[in-house]
Formats: sequence, structure tokens, C-alpha cells
Amino acid sequence: MLYPQDQRYVLTSPTAMPQAGGFLWNRRMMIQTTCRGYATAQFMQPEPGKYSHAPNLEAKSFMQPEQNYYAHHPGRFVYVKDEDTGELFSAPYEPVRGGLDRFEFSVGRVDLHWTIEKLGIRIDLTLALPVDDVAELWTVNVTNLSDRPRRISIYPYFTVGYMSWMNQSAEYRHDLGAIVAFGITPYQKLDDYFKNRLLKDRTVLLCEHAPDAWETAQGAFEGEGGLHAPSALSSESLLCGDARYETPAAVVQYRLALAPGNAIKRRFLFGPAFDDAEIASLRQRYLSEEGFAAAARDYAAYIAEGDGVLQIATPDRELDNFVNTWLARQVYYHGDVNRLSTDPQTRNYLQDNMGMVFVKPAVARAAFLHALSQQEANGAMPDGILLFEGAELKYINQIPHTDHCVWLPVCLQAYLDETGDAAILDVPVTTHDGAVKSAFDRICLAMDWLLQRRDARGLSYIEQGDWCDPMNMVGYKGRGVSVWLTVAAAYALKLWTDVCAARGDAAMQARYQDGAAAMNAAANTHLWDGDWFARGITDDDVKFGVAADTEGRIYLNPQSWSFLSGAADDAQRARMLPEIDAQLTTPYGVQMFAPPYSAMREDIGRVTQKHPGSAENGAVYNHAAVFYIFSLYTIGEADRAFDALRKMIPGPDLADYLQRGQLPVFIPNYYRGAFKEYPRTAGRSSQLFNTGTVAWVYRCLIEGLCGLKGDANGLTIAPQLPSDWSGMTVTRRFRGATFEVAITRGTGDRVTVTCDGIALAAARIDNIEAGRTYHVRVGLAATPPTRSSAG
Amino acid sequence: MLYPQDQRYVLTSPTAMPQAGGFLWNRRMMIQTTCRGYATAQFMQPEPGKYSHAPNLEAKSFMQPEQNYYAHHPGRFVYVKDEDTGELFSAPYEPVRGGLDRFEFSVGRVDLHWTIEKLGIRIDLTLALPVDDVAELWTVNVTNLSDRPRRISIYPYFTVGYMSWMNQSAEYRHDLGAIVAFGITPYQKLDDYFKNRLLKDRTVLLCEHAPDAWETAQGAFEGEGGLHAPSALSSESLLCGDARYETPAAVVQYRLALAPGNAIKRRFLFGPAFDDAEIASLRQRYLSEEGFAAAARDYAAYIAEGDGVLQIATPDRELDNFVNTWLARQVYYHGDVNRLSTDPQTRNYLQDNMGMVFVKPAVARAAFLHALSQQEANGAMPDGILLFEGAELKYINQIPHTDHCVWLPVCLQAYLDETGDAAILDVPVTTHDGAVKSAFDRICLAMDWLLQRRDARGLSYIEQGDWCDPMNMVGYKGRGVSVWLTVAAAYALKLWTDVCAARGDAAMQARYQDGAAAMNAAANTHLWDGDWFARGITDDDVKFGVAADTEGRIYLNPQSWSFLSGAADDAQRARMLPEIDAQLTTPYGVQMFAPPYSAMREDIGRVTQKHPGSAENGAVYNHAAVFYIFSLYTIGEADRAFDALRKMIPGPDLADYLQRGQLPVFIPNYYRGAFKEYPRTAGRSSQLFNTGTVAWVYRCLIEGLCGLKGDANGLTIAPQLPSDWSGMTVTRRFRGATFEVAITRGTGDRVTVTCDGIALAAARIDNIEAGRTYHVRVGLAATPPTRSSAG
Repeated sequence: MLYPQDQRYVLTSPTAMPQAGGFLWNRRMMIQTTCRGYATAQFMQPEPGKYSHAPNLEAKSFMQPEQNYYAHHPGRFVYVKDEDTGELFSAPYEPVRGGLDRFEFSVGRVDLHWTIEKLGIRIDLTLALPVDDVAELWTVNVTNLSDRPRRISIYPYFTVGYMSWMNQSAEYRHDLGAIVAFGITPYQKLDDYFKNRLLKDRTVLLCEHAPDAWETAQGAFEGEGGLHAPSALSSESLLCGDARYETPAAVVQYRLALAPGNAIKRRFLFGPAFDDAEIASLRQRYLSEEGFAAAARDYAAYIAEGDGVLQIATPDRELDNFVNTWLARQVYYHGDVNRLSTDPQTRNYLQDNMGMVFVKPAVARAAFLHALSQQEANGAMPDGILLFEGAELKYINQIPHTDHCVWLPVCLQAYLDETGDAAILDVPVTTHDGAVKSAFDRICLAMDWLLQRRDARGLSYIEQGDWCDPMNMVGYKGRGVSVWLTVAAAYALKLWTDVCAARGDAAMQARYQDGAAAMNAAANTHLWDGDWFARGITDDDVKFGVAADTEGRIYLNPQSWSFLSGAADDAQRARMLPEIDAQLTTPYGVQMFAPPYSAMREDIGRVTQKHPGSAENGAVYNHAAVFYIFSLYTIGEADRAFDALRKMIPGPDLADYLQRGQLPVFIPNYYRGAFKEYPRTAGRSSQLFNTGTVAWVYRCLIEGLCGLKGDANGLTIAPQLPSDWSGMTVTRRFRGATFEVAITRGTGDRVTVTCDGIALAAARIDNIEAGRTYHVRVGLAATPPTRSSAG
Repeated sequence: MLYPQDQRYVLTSPTAMPQAGGFLWNRRMMIQTTCRGYATAQFMQPEPGKYSHAPNLEAKSFMQPEQNYYAHHPGRFVYVKDEDTGELFSAPYEPVRGGLDRFEFSVGRVDLHWTIEKLGIRIDLTLALPVDDVAELWTVNVTNLSDRPRRISIYPYFTVGYMSWMNQSAEYRHDLGAIVAFGITPYQKLDDYFKNRLLKDRTVLLCEHAPDAWETAQGAFEGEGGLHAPSALSSESLLCGDARYETPAAVVQYRLALAPGNAIKRRFLFGPAFDDAEIASLRQRYLSEEGFAAAARDYAAYIAEGDGVLQIATPDRELDNFVNTWLARQVYYHGDVNRLSTDPQTRNYLQDNMGMVFVKPAVARAAFLHALSQQEANGAMPDGILLFEGAELKYINQIPHTDHCVWLPVCLQAYLDETGDAAILDVPVTTHDGAVKSAFDRICLAMDWLLQRRDARGLSYIEQGDWCDPMNMVGYKGRGVSVWLTVAAAYALKLWTDVCAARGDAAMQARYQDGAAAMNAAANTHLWDGDWFARGITDDDVKFGVAADTEGRIYLNPQSWSFLSGAADDAQRARMLPEIDAQLTTPYGVQMFAPPYSAMREDIGRVTQKHPGSAENGAVYNHAAVFYIFSLYTIGEADRAFDALRKMIPGPDLADYLQRGQLPVFIPNYYRGAFKEYPRTAGRSSQLFNTGTVAWVYRCLIEGLCGLKGDANGLTIAPQLPSDWSGMTVTRRFRGATFEVAITRGTGDRVTVTCDGIALAAARIDNIEAGRTYHVRVGLAATPPTRSSAG
């Protein structure tokens, strides 16, 4: 039903995992396509726009988890009709559905491919993207598999949907060789008028070969037959109609005569355009064999730029496949296009660029400085980072959150470790008020802001939220506090203490060291619940996330970050870990909290409103889970860490794929949780590939599993293999050099390292020479380290 | 295919006019339903909300014209399965579609009814509403028409749709006898939280009889079969599943054994609810034969309150049927619920309440005073009237328009004529700044504002628009002017002059008389184009709506209102009317302008962006057409007026119904125009029943066709029958009395009137006694009046 094939994943049933799909992106667009042919595409102009719309007036919103697909959901399909028998099927599966003789959906790093067979006809579909244009490049290959001549019609059908309540139309343009649908973005206010007139309001299907017929009106195409059996297909020829304030569709017909074994290829370009000139130019650039081939070459090179710094060979082949083929690609996507938003949330922007540290560190560097340039005078970071002049903070970024400063040292640490570029700290950064301060001073200011925003007990105020949107009612009156934020700030201060120390700034070092200690102490004094840390205290002084709660009894984040900050000592950790195992760990990962809330809890708010088993309410929220994993590696809990990490990737058994409904080509932002309460849906993937998780997964693999983290002077070596692995090999690119590392489980009682055959005194390599390949052998201790030994 | 039946219209084909339907409303909700079963419902809480959603995240928007229906559009359906043969059909038509043995869709004033026959089974569906609850009351009657016992399953299927990206679920509740779907309105900001927690987030299907089985998840219901052949129906019993963050659906199954000729009835209530207690209370109130019957009685009484003041019997039976059964109902709808908005545009609010003058004058009176209470200190009227504390002006009402003051005297005139209640003028009206002024003084202030907002030539500035949203770029720089607004303001001043005169306020009378004359003169001096009035002059001094233009050459509104204001003299009118006939008049009414724009004209803006043939771009925009009609009656053009008026109602021939796609149960806001450019779609109805048109149609009928207008002292009598009518009879209610008026084409050269057998010296009845019935005979002149005689 599913098998890996070189660098692809192939799904052989359209019904087993109907929501499974893949995604492609380039510098200006993104498309997510399901195995059955539905598609969600967005492009930047500069705000996210669409060229293939829903059948109604759709709300603009951030990308949703668990998209609901329905008959008229945007998609790309090819109807095939046997002209002799009138029999009909569609590729890839929708809209006709029904039994196919063969179905293969193959997700690659640079294209999506389908092979469909029915009625002795094979349809091969390939979707590829160019690098810089907003355009889907489709190849449709039709093969006569039978031993007799065949007369068939193929009808590529690209949904255009409801373009505008103000103006929509479509027609086939002989001069352009394209169906051109036209809509006007409805506008009202004067300011919007001048913005909207620059939008690409056309949706175009360019055909390399002129079609024999076409239809451009959705209603005329479907008739009474409906999408699964369009009336227009019952005639010999489509009617070549236009659409006049009727929902447009792009359908073309090719009447083909195929000798036995013969094949015919048709190429199409689907996307938005501003005007006829742009359509003509797209045609010129792409609509030929060489045009498609050149685009494929360029795109492969573009994707290869995101290959990252890590290749592994372990006893776990699925893990290898995911890490080597897919993970860096997802990291690259985040850092390259910022989730196709123009005002990414500050924490997302910083973490996505933390991933970019391993892919394109120069991009990450610029991003960190760009974020700092939007710091407020009092040290606070805004809720979103505006990526261009004229961008605006959207609704969700107008809600004040208190955690953004935390992410500065946390994410910068990865950059400093990977690049050793301490010079970034001295870069002068100018804010909108004209004030100039070094990056170092700005982050000190941010740390001071965290120190200040605490109550008399020394706990951090949560206000309307402390991370994404889990809780909005805990502290809106100005009194409620967050344990997570308290220990997260302590962790940030601890990291910053080290940076101050490295600069020899003893005063600042002491200041933040004391601050971190005070926050850890405050968390322990007020919020240690006996076996774990509570989650917070509401405005009305109600502690929650405590043993006395029947719902939301234990939250993961306060525990993970207390490991990171050092708030939890050995004895505490020994109590906490079994509770996390028992209460939060599921076959699909570690839940963000448990049990899920079954109803509204007015005093904490939003988290209790999330659907049980999804997103924040009791889900395996991978972003929270990965911090747990990261924290486990910092305390040497290699087995627990790997167990949780491994669960982020579907597999290895079929039942697990089916339950999650996802190909292992990206890590989704969540798997449904509520494992005890709603076992039917537990584990189901959100199918949403936008998530800060992946940068951290990459970091966990590099720094934790492989133990190949940089520091100011070079590369440190401290692999943490699961105890049942005998070894693994790693290719690690670092500061221009390549490290071929073979790790084996040794027989001694300590780690031994040789580099190019020479035993090293310390498990680290300094004075790295760019361009050189280092051959490293690591012998682990005979028994894996125990929890406390690395704690 | 379509026939009137008592007070109903019946459509016997679901495919001939697939978008045709009817609408019902009550004090809190509205539902528009197509003959095929799709439905659009809204309710107030207090902003418009939905309980049956689209399959995706739908944008909030004002009601759209020409709704696009698609497979998963919200709807109400009943699947029927023959348990012995497995055969399936659905009532009323969607989602299975396909041939039915009988189909009747019958639109009544108080209910919608379908009769469907197939496989020897008859399904009768009735939809009714209560008066004060948001609830659809559905009756499903199943009859075995065959001569053998039958085992069938019926599956009422009510779409719930995508309730929320935050939280959605559904289950059958045995304790409530209902499927309860639950969603959380996504919220983020603190203020919204406190608002949204009061929303009715549940969608409920209450069943009088406990179903045998059910399904509550859309996906589980459809399976691979799709909506037209849901997989769940292939089993003997639905699986009684729940929905957990899956799109909910409300499907119940009844397994029925029916002897030949036997029938079984099932009642359902579908709608939103706040909590279990409300669901239980709805059940208690409605879910019984007596509950439904009581609701029907109350609702009939409620609708009867909107019967209005006019019944006619003319040679035109379709006209009679429309006027006597439907027109006042549509007028009442507008005045009763203000189009289900909380911030109606000021011009709409005033005109809708102008219609209410004839239905519930006390409501109209309060509305006029309420509108005045939101006047600005400088006399301007706001763009929208807020109907309750906390309401906000929506996007479209944040765009400054310059016409709102015009509508005060124009609409108030109808109130004064109908009621004689001049005391309204002396009512003190307090605005938000605490200023108290009489209604008279406030309208004077508004008239002064109109006089002031003119350029040096005496022409009215258009700014970003002068009516609805036809043009936004003509005058945004502050220089462009509107001819329509200039003559409309002149008309308003003219009317106000008369009010001042009646109050004996000679100073004000002179002031506004002079003002009106000056504006008419300015229009003539600067914007008379030779055979008609231009539409305006842009910021950059370009005249448009002139003979030199190839698109947008002649606009209707400036001509109509120049008739009303007196700007056009007899000689001008004699040139204008043939141009209107030739350039604007079509079989479907009079276009707002012609020819339609084929592309953007940057200097006038929005009107050129509307789809050719619809809304503002070359459409038969009925609101504009009715002013033309009204103006024609004021100048005695009875035949032209009636011709244009008659075209607002589909009929009389089948081709006309089909082209318009609408039952004659309401007047839509437009019929597509561009009759010459796009004949295929010309005439097509917008299907949108929200329109200021209807109040004016009612006024045209009363004051124009029937000529039974009030004035300060009584009822004036001046019918204007089309010249080919020999007579008509009218029942006119007026100031508590009833006038039974028989109008005949006489033989003399002047109008003669008798009242209760006594010849009257003047064609008017004064000193009207409430409660009395007057029998009036009107003898018209032998030849209809010529244009100039009444001019």
C-alpha cells in the first residue's frame, strides 16, 4: 500500500489514506496536493492569494489543519473517456472515483507523480514547479496498454472556482492558447483600490497543444450529471462555451487515436497571471519539452540548496529515509518562504530561521537581525515580524503574548554553535524609532524585559498568552502567571549568561545568572506540585495543571523546560519522568497535556476550546513534544528521547500509517491525542506541514542523537544512540568541512574518538579546515549512559 | 412547468430553473431555499450567523447575488431507499438528482412545500418557521402509492458543514432526541471572547420520533459513494457514529413498513441552540402536531400583519397575483428585519422604511427618527444606521458616500402623504453629542449640507460614491461631481420646500426653492449633453455618460431624477425619452446604463469592474429602473411607466421564466443586462430579494398606476392606467378606512369620480372616517393623458 522508492514515497491506494499527499513550493508559491487530486495552492502578491478557488466566497485564514475535502474542493483532474464505449474514469481518482486497475501516487522531493490504469489506458500525471514563477507545470501522458487501436478523449479539468462576487468570466483565447478566467478582487476603500489593481486577477490554463474543444463554465460542464459524471462529457465534443459571471472552470478536450502501446504527451501550465503579456511570456518560457526540462533542472538545483548538513545510516531505515530525504527539505521550506506569510509570528520566524541555520546560515543571520530591528524601545519583541514595507500584523498577531523575547537567545544559540559567528552580536541594529544598538545590547534589553515582567513572587506574567494560542484567559487581568514562561525565561537567561561569559562581560553574566536562578527558585517555591510542575496560576489565584485537576492535570511544557532551565533537579526529574510516561506518552507521541478538557474552563480559556484530541487540547502537539525530546537529550535520556522522536514519523507498520493517514514526507504540526478518550481518531495527522517542530527535530538529531554540535571552537562529539542500537554512521557538514562519522557501541566504559585514525584526547575536533573531509570513529561506552550520568 | 395556485407558485421541474426558490423569514432569521433543496439561512445573534455552514471556512459577507450552488452547498434533503430493491432517490431533487415521476415545488407566503414521487413512494416536504425562534420546522410525509406493502428507509439529511477550525463535533443525544453538533466560534482577542461566548454554537436536528439509526459525521456518511450515492446508505442501518473534529452532518434513518396507500409523518426542527436547556425547550414547544399547528397559526398571523394597503384586479392576472400576494410581503420583510443587518446603509434603511409606511407606519416613524438621531453635527448623515448599542459600521459602510441626506425628505414624503402625521416634524431628536433639535430642523440641516457640498459651478461633489457603490474613483480627489446627485438633491430640496410651505415657514421655503432651482440650473448649464444629461465630471474634468463615450454612454438615473427635480423641461424630455427607449430599454427592463463597460476605466472606477450584464455594469438594476418608473408617473408617461414596471415581474411566457430563472414571488435586485452584448445571459435574475426596489414599486402602484395617494387632507385620485386597459378595481386601505375603487376607461375628456354614488367636484376625498368603507367609481378620460398634460 505504501513503499519508499529511492527518494520517493509511493501510495498505491487512493482510499486507504484519502487525505495523504505531498507539497511543493518555490520562492513565490506553495501547493499541497492529496493523492486523490485535491489541491490547496497559495502564492504571494505580496499577501497570500489564490488562483484556484473554493466554490464559494472563502474566508482568508491561516492554513488550516485537517482540511475538509468535498466534491468541489479545488483540484486538478483528468477525465478519460473511451469514445467507443462511452466508459469514463478520472485520474488521479476524484471526481469519478471508483475502482482503478492500478493507482500509484508518488511523492518526490521535486515533483508529484501519479500513474493510473483503467480500461487498458494508462495516465501518467506529473506536477512540477519552476523556481521563480507562480505556475504549476503539468505533464499528462496517455498510453494505450491494450492490444487494439483506441479512440479516447482526455479532459484535463482544473478548477477555477468562485473568483469574485464582483466580476468573473472565462473564455478560451486562441491567440494565447489558453483558457483565461478573469475575476476582480472586490474592493471598496480607496486605499485598497490602489493595492488591488496590481493583483494577478487572471487564472490561466496554458496548453502546449491547442485542444480540440473546451468548456469554461463550471455549470455548463457539470450539467445534471454532476462532477462524478459531467453532462458535457456525454457529447462527442465539449461545447466551447464562455463563462459570463458564472463560476469559471478550465476544461480542455483532446480527442486521441492511439495505436496499441502508443503514448501521447500533453503539457499544461496552470496559475495566475496579471495580463495577456504575462500569459504569453509564460507560454514562451515553459510550454515546450525543453521549457519543462529546464524548469525541472533549475528546480532540482533550488531544492538541493536545502540539503542541510546531515545524512545518517542507522538500524532504522525509515528514519534514515525521512531524515536524509525529507527533513531538511521541510526545514528549508520554512526558512525559505516563512510559511507564505508576510507577518510571521515572532516566535515562528525565529525558530524557522533557527532551522535555516543548518541550511542557509546567511539567511538565518539576516533574519535574526531583521527581527531585532523591530524590537520595541522597552525591549519587548512584537507579536509578528513584518517582512516588507506595508505589511500589517493580522488578527492573530494583534493579541499580546509574553514569550517572544525568550526565543532570541534560544534560537541564536543554534546559530552561534553552528557558525561560530560571534560577530553577529556586535552588528548595530536600528529600530523604527532610529535608535541604534548592537544585537548583543538588544538581546540584553529583551532579557531585562523578561526579568521585569514578573510578579512579586518572581513568576512571569502570562497576560493573554505565552506561546502560540493555548490560553488567553489565565492572566488577562494582569495577575495570572505562567510556569512555562518562568522556566523558559530562566532557560533563555541561562543561555544568555553563557554568551555574556564568552564575551567576558562579567557584570551581565552575573545579572542573568542571578535572574535565571531566581526564576528557577520561584518556580520551585510556588509551582512544584509534588510530582511535576504546575502550568500556571490564574488571575484569581487558581493553580492549574496540578494533581488535583481532573482535566488538564499535567502539562508537558513546564516539565521539559524545567529540565532545560535546571529548575528540576535529579530527584525531581526522577519523579517527573514516570508521570510523563504514564499520563502523557501515547503510541503517537507525547501529549501536550492530559487529560483533555471536555468542556470550557472559563478561567483559562482558549486551550479548553480546542477540539479534544487535536491542536492544543490534549493533542500530540509536535512542537511541544520536540522540546521534551530536546530537553531529554540535554539530560541524557537517550531512550526516552528517541522513543518520542521516532513517533513523529509514521510507521513502521501499516496500521500506523492508516491511523495517521499520512505519508512520512513531513512532520505535521500535530497528531490527534486524547488517546484514552477518543481512540478512534487518536494519532490522526493534521496534514499541516507548517510547524516550528522541524527545526527542533533537526537540532535534536544533530545535537542529541548524533551528538555533533558545534561550539565557539569546533565540533563536539557526544552521540546518544538508543540503547538497542549497535551503531550508526553520519555524514555531517560543518563549517565547510565534511565529517564522515562511524559510531559503534563499544566495550569500554567511556566514549572514544578517533579522527582520521588518530585517537583524540577529548571528544571534539577543533581548528576545522573548510573543504576537508574528516573520518571520525566514535566508540560509545558499552552501556548507554543512565539518566543521571548526563543530567 | 410553472403555475400559480391560489396564493402559491408551483414549479414542476427541478431542472428548468435550478436556482429558483422562495424565502421565508421571521423576526430573527431568514432562509432562502431553492427548488432542488439547497438553502441559505441566517439568523441574528445579534450579528448575522449561520447554523448550516458551507463545507469550508466561508467568508462573512453581505448576501451575494446569483449564489453559486455546488454539491456540498448547505441544504436539506431526504434520501429514500427501497429496502427490498436497494433503489435510492432523494427529495426534493439533490443530491441524488435523476428522473422523478413527479416533482412539485410550491412557494407559499407562509411555507415552502415539495411533493416528490418515485418508485411508487410519495414524499411531501413542508418547511415552516415560527415567529420568534430561530428554527426550521420540517414535516416529512411518506406515502406508499403502490398496491403492495413496502419496506423503505427514509434518511432526512440536514447539512451542518464546517462549523469551526477550532472545535467541531456531533453526536446523537438520546436524552434530547436530537443530533447535536457543536462548534466553537474561533476567537482570539479578549473583547471578542466575551462577545463570542454568548453565541449559539450548537446546530441541532430535533426529531419528534426517535430515529432507528443516525450518522453525525459527513465523511462517514458519504464514504466513497459521495453525496449522490452515500456509502452509508448501502448498509441496512446507519452506524450511529459520532463526529470528533470531523465535519458534522445530521442524518437520521427511519425504517418504515407501509401498507398500500398508507402514510407516515415525521416532524423535525433544525436550527441553532445555545445549550441543552434551550434544545429541550424547543422540543417541548414545537415537536408535536399541536406545536407545529400553533406555530403555523402564529406565523400566518405574523405574515398577515404585512398585508399592506393595496389589492388590485386588472386585466393582467399575473400582475394581480404578484401585487396581491407577494409584493407587500417583500416590502414587509425589508421593514421588519432590515435585511438581517445591524448597520443598514442609511439610504437602504430609509427606503426600506418608506415601504413600511404602507405596512406598519409606526415602525417607519420610529425608524426615521432613529436615523435622524445619528445625524452628524454638520448635518451629514452617516453611511450606516446602527440598530443597537455595540453595532459597528462594516467595511462597506466605512466608505464615505454623499447621497444619504437626499433620502430624508424623499422617504419622509411618503410617510407624510400616507399618514398626514405632520407632528413627526416637531419631535425633538437627540444625537450622540447630546444636541436636541426637532426632526424638521434636522432635515433642514441635512438640506443645508447638500447645498454646501457643491463646487463653484453649483454641482454636487461625488467623493467616493453617491449611491450604493457604482463609482468610487470619479471624485476621490475632491473635485469630481455627480449629475445624479445634483438633480437628486434638487428633488429633495423641492420636496422639502413644500414641507416648509405647509408649515408656513416662508424663509426656509424660499431658501430651498432657490437652492433647488440653482441646482437644476447648474445641471442644465454644465451637464446637458444635447439629448440627455451626462452622469458626472471626474476629478480631472472629464465628462462621462455622454454621447461621445462608446461605453457607459447614457445613464438612467440622471434622466429619471431630472424629471423628478424639474431640471428637464418638456422639450428636453421629448429628446430624452426616445434615447432611453433606444439605448436602455430591453425585454427585461431598463438598463442602468449602456453600453456596459468591457474593461476598467480608471477614472471612474468600480462600476466598470462589475460583471458585464450584472449589478451595476449595464444591468437592469431594478432600483434604478423603479426611479425611472416613478419619474415617468410624475410626468404622466403611463404607458412607458407600466411597460418598465411590468418587466420587473417574470412572465407571462415560459421562455421569459426560463431566461430569468425565477419564480415571480419577489423582485430581485437586478436582472442581468448587456442585452446586446451578452444575450445568452441577459435577463437572468440575481435571485437576491434584498433591494430598495420594492418599496418604490409599491409606491409606484399606489401613487402612479392606481393614483390613490394621500396628502395632508385626504386621498387624491388620479389613476394612470396603461392605454390598452379598459379598467381595473382597487381595494385601498388608507388612514383606517377602506376604499373600494372601480376604475373604468370613460368616454369623456376628463376624469370623473363618484364616492358612494355621489359625484365629486374634485378628484379627491377629504375628511376620511376611519373604519368606513368608501365605494369609489373613477371614470378616466377616453384617451389616456399624453405625456405633457401631466408633466
